[in-house]
Amino acid sequence: MSVAAEFVRAHQNRHLDELKDILRIPSISTDPARAQDVARAAAWVEGRLKRAGCTKTAIHKTPRHPIVYGEWLGAPGKPTILVYGHYDVQPPEPLELWTTPPFEPTIRDGRLYARGACDDKGQFIIHVNAFEAHLKTSGTCPVNVKFLIEGEEEIGSGNLEPFIAANKELLACDAVVVSDTAMLDKKTPSITHGLRGLSYCQIDVRGTSRDLHSGSFGGAVINPAFALAHILAQLKDTKGKVKVPGFYDKVKKLTAKERKAMASLPHSDARFKKEIAAPALFGEPGFTTLERITARPTLEINGIWGGFQGDGAKTVIPAEAHAKVSMRLVPDQTSDEIFKKFERFVKKIAPKSVQVKVTHLHHGAGWLAPTDHAALQAASRAVKKAFGKAPVFTREGGSIPVVATFDKVLKVPSVLMGIGLHDDNLHAPNEKIDLDNFFKGNEAATYLMEELATV
Amino acid sequence: MSVAAEFVRAHQNRHLDELKDILRIPSISTDPARAQDVARAAAWVEGRLKRAGCTKTAIHKTPRHPIVYGEWLGAPGKPTILVYGHYDVQPPEPLELWTTPPFEPTIRDGRLYARGACDDKGQFIIHVNAFEAHLKTSGTCPVNVKFLIEGEEEIGSGNLEPFIAANKELLACDAVVVSDTAMLDKKTPSITHGLRGLSYCQIDVRGTSRDLHSGSFGGAVINPAFALAHILAQLKDTKGKVKVPGFYDKVKKLTAKERKAMASLPHSDARFKKEIAAPALFGEPGFTTLERITARPTLEINGIWGGFQGDGAKTVIPAEAHAKVSMRLVPDQTSDEIFKKFERFVKKIAPKSVQVKVTHLHHGAGWLAPTDHAALQAASRAVKKAFGKAPVFTREGGSIPVVATFDKVLKVPSVLMGIGLHDDNLHAPNEKIDLDNFFKGNEAATYLMEELATV
Repeated sequence: MSVAAEFVRAHQNRHLDELKDILRIPSISTDPARAQDVARAAAWVEGRLKRAGCTKTAIHKTPRHPIVYGEWLGAPGKPTILVYGHYDVQPPEPLELWTTPPFEPTIRDGRLYARGACDDKGQFIIHVNAFEAHLKTSGTCPVNVKFLIEGEEEIGSGNLEPFIAANKELLACDAVVVSDTAMLDKKTPSITHGLRGLSYCQIDVRGTSRDLHSGSFGGAVINPAFALAHILAQLKDTKGKVKVPGFYDKVKKLTAKERKAMASLPHSDARFKKEIAAPALFGEPGFTTLERITARPTLEINGIWGGFQGDGAKTVIPAEAHAKVSMRLVPDQTSDEIFKKFERFVKKIAPKSVQVKVTHLHHGAGWLAPTDHAALQAASRAVKKAFGKAPVFTREGGSIPVVATFDKVLKVPSVLMGIGLHDDNLHAPNEKIDLDNFFKGNEAATYLMEELATV
Repeated sequence: MSVAAEFVRAHQNRHLDELKDILRIPSISTDPARAQDVARAAAWVEGRLKRAGCTKTAIHKTPRHPIVYGEWLGAPGKPTILVYGHYDVQPPEPLELWTTPPFEPTIRDGRLYARGACDDKGQFIIHVNAFEAHLKTSGTCPVNVKFLIEGEEEIGSGNLEPFIAANKELLACDAVVVSDTAMLDKKTPSITHGLRGLSYCQIDVRGTSRDLHSGSFGGAVINPAFALAHILAQLKDTKGKVKVPGFYDKVKKLTAKERKAMASLPHSDARFKKEIAAPALFGEPGFTTLERITARPTLEINGIWGGFQGDGAKTVIPAEAHAKVSMRLVPDQTSDEIFKKFERFVKKIAPKSVQVKVTHLHHGAGWLAPTDHAALQAASRAVKKAFGKAPVFTREGGSIPVVATFDKVLKVPSVLMGIGLHDDNLHAPNEKIDLDNFFKGNEAATYLMEELATV
């Protein structure tokens, strides 16, 4: 065990207290009413970077939420890593389903429950702790370190992309390090080498100028909720295949080797089904569950609303109905092209007696890296030291659009060393982080700096 | 002009003030939080009946909202009429679309705006005013009068039906009088001789036990919002025909005579379309607009909800999705039979990977009366005296289930003399009543008592 790893092990209590501190800040980036809290979280991160030993820090303002930057460049001749993470979180609703309030971090059964516990406050912080451990124990760090912690990941990183393009020199590095992904399960540490892209849209359907009495008018005017149901039902067939024309055109076919590697992972459909209490598994025919959630594109309804939602009966024909629909993309689909195809199809299948608007709210590209890359192999060794077991290489179904940007703009590899679990309830009530994973993650992060120094 | 009609004309200001009084009470029957307000409205109605001259009044408790009864039986040998109305109202949401608050009655351009102005507080009250006018001007009334004003019409009159069955003697009468319908337009006073029935249902679709991250799980589990869209889209074809098997089995075919009478009414599709600002008219092929909204059954979505509805993007697969769906029925469809067919069909077409529950929230039978009935002809003469023009006979698309009950249980005809207009925004923001119609309605109600005395 290295001295840095010993240091983080000795400071577990402090790391936990610090994590609770930032988890108490409701930095919900999508909610304009929370802008002050988002700013407060940014200030907290800058303070923590300073205390850890960064020699330069800055809060970069953007048109919406600030980007926090920190650096320590005291190891000339050594590689430079750029740690990316985000301090913003998803909205906590529905609040009534949380066992304890989302912004009052609470430990139960070795897990810390709070919005952002796993996504991403409890993950990016391990690299700050690791950096501090090296500095405090040996006065130096095996690699030069830059931190880039943003506040808009949950709303599409809209201001981070231009910031990266405009600050290539500031952000120049040899590898990007990201902890914002999950392990296959608690016994199977994992390095993620693929991510899906995203195109997130809203469909607004409008009929008459006002809600109408469904008795007096029912049967003679189009019902926007019906029009919406007809549109949504045509987006995907009942077996799970997306029906937007051209949707699969650019999807890379899975090679036999890739399918074999994926099939060898310790995944169990039965356990997966049980974990999420699904009545049945379901998806695109001809693919396994792991392939469906990581290597195949998909389309999901994230929300629908229109008309009366209260208790009892209100006999209205709603004037409007709405849906949020998002598509997860794989290489080489691009979100702009997919959005155009989606918008064209929705307008084409919409009944002519309603007005339909389609808006692109959020987007990002997918990403796939070779598993034999030196940086990914270094991460594999670091994880093995901390977790006592070599990690598997996995693809993840979620999206971290900035990873594709690092690839394209900074032209460096990304190492995705995640310590989340699939039942951590990201974006859902009762989000949590497993404390074993958090503490081992801190150790793995110290080893990662040592291993990346040799690449 | 009769002395009673002169009396109501002389008391217009007081009638308006009294109407405003009861409109200020938010007697929303569907909202459990408003139970006290509903009770307050019942007490107001009883007080008004006493002041008008009823010799006996009572507030009958029910498991939910009370029924107000009043009577004056001082004309032995004369016919007895039973005035039915309801003092409960629809929920006012969405509040932001009201120009002035729903429970602060406000006059603009000769109209009184408030929830319940037309449906039904501003309508049933005209018979109380008329009864009072007869008593105050001649010390007697041409007919014996009973009032039955309930507080659950907007939630299906669930407790009124057994009350009627249990109180046949108390409610015994020669004709029922109801003002809760609309005139064809402001120039065309109308007597309604047909109503549609109703079957109002809720569909609850459940997938997994909790909301899931749409990146991590999208593609591998059923999405309840998709399942719901698939179900809803199959309920009605894109032309407006209901696809529930057997739905049209018992629907009476319109006779050539009925179709001709309907076609002769002063209805204009262009004006109808303009009134509701619909992009286009739409409905079951082979029928006119008036036939579609009054003489044909239909199925409408009244509300849908599930998942994320806020600003921006939240990438969840919702655990559940819901819809309110109601069907308007015509003779001889029955709501129980139609609900059974609906439930069976929904469960049949629902994907097997979700759980589906269908609940019957609200129901009632349709009604159709012959236009040459003596009571309807008496009403026609009364309306002509007040409005200066003979009324047309119309069928209405809405439902007043209790009218079918009066027919079945009390075995008496109902006279539906409505003074509403089609742009009165029933069940919608900015409900109103036209004050000309309200004042003429008071006069028509005095004449109606005189005319029914001779039947």
